[in-house]
Amino acid sequence: MSLAASKNVFQSDRAKIEALFEQLHRAYAEHNADAIVSAYTKDALIYDLAPPLLHRGLDVKSLGEWLATWDGPLEMDMQDYDITVDEHLAVATALGKMHGTQQGEHREIWLRTTFVLRKINGQWLISHDHASVPFYMDGSFRAAIDLTPESK
Amino acid sequence: MSLAASKNVFQSDRAKIEALFEQLHRAYAEHNADAIVSAYTKDALIYDLAPPLLHRGLDVKSLGEWLATWDGPLEMDMQDYDITVDEHLAVATALGKMHGTQQGEHREIWLRTTFVLRKINGQWLISHDHASVPFYMDGSFRAAIDLTPESK
Repeated sequence: MSLAASKNVFQSDRAKIEALFEQLHRAYAEHNADAIVSAYTKDALIYDLAPPLLHRGLDVKSLGEWLATWDGPLEMDMQDYDITVDEHLAVATALGKMHGTQQGEHREIWLRTTFVLRKINGQWLISHDHASVPFYMDGSFRAAIDLTPESK
Repeated sequence: MSLAASKNVFQSDRAKIEALFEQLHRAYAEHNADAIVSAYTKDALIYDLAPPLLHRGLDVKSLGEWLATWDGPLEMDMQDYDITVDEHLAVATALGKMHGTQQGEHREIWLRTTFVLRKINGQWLISHDHASVPFYMDGSFRAAIDLTPESK
């Protein structure tokens, strides 16, 4: 059975994964660090926007402190959203527009996001999260935080 | 059957995927753009180091031109290498040290890499490739191209 042929088989898994991302979306908007952390496995492999190169698991305290730097809701709008579901493993990719207000200033940044999920005792959890922006190879090595999906 | 319990079932798939990455490793060293492209699906989703945010499929011509900017072998050493294999979907994550000589200068950069693979007619191909470095959130927005796995 191919992934395409098995699409209907995994409809309820797909629905569970979509519900998990809706939970995440609300949790960012509401600064609910506990709800974010509960979507991840304890030792999830995190390739974050900021150094170091990787860390394991989300820390609820530092996540809460970071959320508190935003005045009001932190929104994550997804585009080019795609989920592939297999028996025990799923992958979701999307471009995400993270936007909100920090210290009175509107901020908006487009990210590339890759989420890997595992089905553990019937529950889907994020086991890997890779978020990034590219960087300019013009010698400046600036992070490309000013791109949009339309940028060439 | 859990992913852990199914580990032995997927041994031959794992071996095929490892062979694919060995093929990629040799292809970078030998500047063989065709061999690199043949490891990917035609419409693979690429989140590359350089802008734009995403592109679809590898272009053999521009890949060949980029490889030609390196004097001699371009090496990719992997660390913290992990492969998870399911029925038709697999994920490989690693930190990669990309190093070689460009215009007489030694260059070395640590990347985070996430590869998603699909089994299509019995053959594993890369359908998604996300490579990145973090960036410094000290107001400089510099790409963090000077990190190592030991960096805090």
